[in-house]
Amino acid sequence: MNTNQTDARIKALREIMMKRGIDATIIPQTDPHQGEYLADHWQTRRWLSGFTGSAGDLVVTHDNAYIWADSRYWLQAARQLDGTCISVMEDGKPETPSIAGWLCQTLPAGATVGINGMTFSINAARHLNTSLSSAGISLNVDFDPIDLLWTDRPSLPKTKAFIHEDKYAGETAQSKIARVLDNVKTSGAEAAFISDLAEIAWILNLRSADVECNPVVTSFLLLAPQGSTLFIDPDKLTPEITGHLSACGVATAPYSSTAESLAHLPESLTILVSGSQTGIAIHSRLGNRAIIGPSPAAMLKAVKNPTQIAGVRQAMIRDGIALVHSFMEIEKRMGNNIPTTEIDVADILRKHRSANPMFFDLSFDTIAGFGPHGAIVHYSATEESNATLSPDNLLLVDSGANYFDGTTDITRTIALGTPTEAQKHDFTLVMKGHIAIAQAIYPEGTRGAQLDALARINLWKEGLSYLHGTGHGVGHFLNVHEGPQSIRLNDTLAPLTPGMITSNEPGLYREGLYGIRCENLVLTQKETSTEFGNFYSFETLTLFPFDLSLFDTSIMTDS
Amino acid sequence: MNTNQTDARIKALREIMMKRGIDATIIPQTDPHQGEYLADHWQTRRWLSGFTGSAGDLVVTHDNAYIWADSRYWLQAARQLDGTCISVMEDGKPETPSIAGWLCQTLPAGATVGINGMTFSINAARHLNTSLSSAGISLNVDFDPIDLLWTDRPSLPKTKAFIHEDKYAGETAQSKIARVLDNVKTSGAEAAFISDLAEIAWILNLRSADVECNPVVTSFLLLAPQGSTLFIDPDKLTPEITGHLSACGVATAPYSSTAESLAHLPESLTILVSGSQTGIAIHSRLGNRAIIGPSPAAMLKAVKNPTQIAGVRQAMIRDGIALVHSFMEIEKRMGNNIPTTEIDVADILRKHRSANPMFFDLSFDTIAGFGPHGAIVHYSATEESNATLSPDNLLLVDSGANYFDGTTDITRTIALGTPTEAQKHDFTLVMKGHIAIAQAIYPEGTRGAQLDALARINLWKEGLSYLHGTGHGVGHFLNVHEGPQSIRLNDTLAPLTPGMITSNEPGLYREGLYGIRCENLVLTQKETSTEFGNFYSFETLTLFPFDLSLFDTSIMTDS
Repeated sequence: MNTNQTDARIKALREIMMKRGIDATIIPQTDPHQGEYLADHWQTRRWLSGFTGSAGDLVVTHDNAYIWADSRYWLQAARQLDGTCISVMEDGKPETPSIAGWLCQTLPAGATVGINGMTFSINAARHLNTSLSSAGISLNVDFDPIDLLWTDRPSLPKTKAFIHEDKYAGETAQSKIARVLDNVKTSGAEAAFISDLAEIAWILNLRSADVECNPVVTSFLLLAPQGSTLFIDPDKLTPEITGHLSACGVATAPYSSTAESLAHLPESLTILVSGSQTGIAIHSRLGNRAIIGPSPAAMLKAVKNPTQIAGVRQAMIRDGIALVHSFMEIEKRMGNNIPTTEIDVADILRKHRSANPMFFDLSFDTIAGFGPHGAIVHYSATEESNATLSPDNLLLVDSGANYFDGTTDITRTIALGTPTEAQKHDFTLVMKGHIAIAQAIYPEGTRGAQLDALARINLWKEGLSYLHGTGHGVGHFLNVHEGPQSIRLNDTLAPLTPGMITSNEPGLYREGLYGIRCENLVLTQKETSTEFGNFYSFETLTLFPFDLSLFDTSIMTDS
Repeated sequence: MNTNQTDARIKALREIMMKRGIDATIIPQTDPHQGEYLADHWQTRRWLSGFTGSAGDLVVTHDNAYIWADSRYWLQAARQLDGTCISVMEDGKPETPSIAGWLCQTLPAGATVGINGMTFSINAARHLNTSLSSAGISLNVDFDPIDLLWTDRPSLPKTKAFIHEDKYAGETAQSKIARVLDNVKTSGAEAAFISDLAEIAWILNLRSADVECNPVVTSFLLLAPQGSTLFIDPDKLTPEITGHLSACGVATAPYSSTAESLAHLPESLTILVSGSQTGIAIHSRLGNRAIIGPSPAAMLKAVKNPTQIAGVRQAMIRDGIALVHSFMEIEKRMGNNIPTTEIDVADILRKHRSANPMFFDLSFDTIAGFGPHGAIVHYSATEESNATLSPDNLLLVDSGANYFDGTTDITRTIALGTPTEAQKHDFTLVMKGHIAIAQAIYPEGTRGAQLDALARINLWKEGLSYLHGTGHGVGHFLNVHEGPQSIRLNDTLAPLTPGMITSNEPGLYREGLYGIRCENLVLTQKETSTEFGNFYSFETLTLFPFDLSLFDTSIMTDS
């Protein structure tokens, strides 16, 4: 998109802000489900700014406009916003203020910040409000000007939902509803309102194609022992789905009626909502009925059952074969001097993966970064940036697929010619971290944040580091990023539990030169029990070799 | 103390509880300063229960009495409470409820829990109240029956305070007050109320001998730009101290007048209090004046200045020489078959340390644990337990001193004869963890919790672990345990910052056999700056060798 268009849209936004008495607005990169990957309908920040990164909130005042981009997107945001009225805040640097902190510094007391309360979680909105009110700034949570500005806004997803069969899910929706309601009771509530699309898909064994690479079903779910309701666009239903839901005691109601329906629920019904997943606008509709607590489904969803794990093993075999074919084809093209670009690499991977009948979609847009592009952590090749591969540098490929029986996510960094000693050294340091995680044994109760430094210490010892997490939870024929567990610098408090699948992906990024990341998926499993308690370990599930030409064995130990 | 006495005291407590309508009370192991080490006056839990551990709260209902003991004290508490009406709750085990959780399960709705609001921090009291109120239980924070029960209760400390000279402190009290008040302003308050005894001693460059091994001055400090007040027993003052305080703009008032004085402060004065250090009773006196925030002094105190670091280096030389003399004397006695007990070891260490004119006191009671006693993590030899050393097992000695120019804390585990292969293997695993911490390099912003697993991973790989922290902050001629930094499983959010002194003390405890712990103090220092940021490392300050006979070099790498 061109820069004039961005500036025109920001100008139009400011005019509405002016009319409504709004001094600043925050357009977060999320949707009413606090999602990370968004249907086109909610790509509001992208439409306004032209910045296409998967994270990064836009803040607009009458005088300034900034995208708060995390380290993955510092370079990309600077490039895409160049020449517009929007600048980049390099989030994560010590000197960069938080959005709330910046607003407090910038706006005078008495100012008003307007946000759309559907796209701010209860926790986020409360936190923002606490900061702003300390500076005498008010927060208006009913400011949603986008429909007025975005006249050709895409509709909500209309694709049909379909049933995720029990032979893949390993547990019926009835059983999951009962287990979730048990957790709801433990939290002291009778019912639960679920906003998270992956949780709804998991609970009800439903899938759709609503969000690119995320086979979720746009909906809200009210779970209650006396009968549950799925708020969903009627266009997405089929008689089969309605029957499936009915058999689980789940009625349907239109998606657009969610907020109003909540306001009419019995006053005495206590409803558990997640402070991090539920919009503040939903919370205000529930009023005193709401009990804020942890998601009653997140831990259950993260711990895979034997059927799911067996499915993932099948998906890994399939994915490994597709990768072997893909990298063979790339090598052959290079050998025959057929020009091959980053987009070609992504296309080749899709071709070989999608050839399998169990393939549903990619699990995320393939990242194929050659040379300096590999150093852009979530690089996505565009027609303009698309580099042609050559033997003089490294190629980083981070890709994955959703198969009906499991989700994959794998990163390989390969030398297209003879790697330099520096490249081998860097690669081997990253692999040492990868191997330290793969071989770790840890007691019951260990959180990923405790293990994170094992992946980093060899880099740190040489003054090197990477700013992204070492690992994220992975769904089962669902979103490639899921909680509650992770392996990262910041603690999530969720213990690594047998059955969880997590990525193991340390990296190193030499700006302007090359990027290295080595990623497999690992399964937490029981290792041993001693007088000191239960100990767990990781089993690596991914089946594809690393590039042996990049190992510097002189700096490795036997393990 | 005998078990009948314990039961009689609990019975008398229950009679007062009955009269006052209290269904349960919690006697925490702390004082109105939320201290860890207590003057005799506040050894309430010890007096009531007979349990002498340095941690562990007592909970008494009309039907039950429990000490919540952490893993260090499971064995000791069981031994000391044997035959009394008090049982041990093994805190830290997954199946052990929290005190609040247990009270909610045990007491009926409508019950009342009574506590002394001086000895419960704001955070602790609020957290307790939230839990109890969810079960319909009320909290009374004015229940303080101890004076009625403990008729021969020791008085408050009366020893004179003295000035910690600038040549050791490296910064004047005036300068510290100014820096603390800068932090107070950053937190949005005008004044600060400081309860923490070590912080008061640090800010004012005062010391005393109020708490065994902790050279603190029992007092509260109200810091304000227009003039500060130290609430202190007049008996503790000298003309020199009063002059020193006056020169810093600090007036004095009686310790006993603290609460009343606070209630008479101007209504408009905003006063910063620490939620974790200030008692809920103080908070209720301050009312709307109180702003709860982080301690304005903790980080400043933890980062040592060059004078302090130079002093610690001198103290380490002195301490190392005392240890060499001590262990030589122990070896000589063993060689000459002179019976030598655990208490003898502690006495020998004290003799050699105290011979130096810079010695003030021990920094904690020496732990000398022979064989199975070494497995009791915070073992303190008594006349009954006192074991005689023999060549067939390991001796664990954890000791330290307060010198006028610095505080030491060191643990060595030595073989008194020829160690077994199993002992060597265990010792070497512990040392590998110790060395991993000592050699760690880590980026600016790293918290100790991120490094903790480096010390544990080699143990975990063999199904072994230890339940205490790997490291704690260490004061300067002050308390041997200080925050905010630590190296432990749970995150404290305080980054390791150049100038901080922290212990490095992994261990392994074989119940009934022996215990191993290897502890040095380490200084966080700048290591390097690269395009990836600033990196820090540890410099080991402690100067005393490890027992080479215990190393199994076959399982070690070059580093």
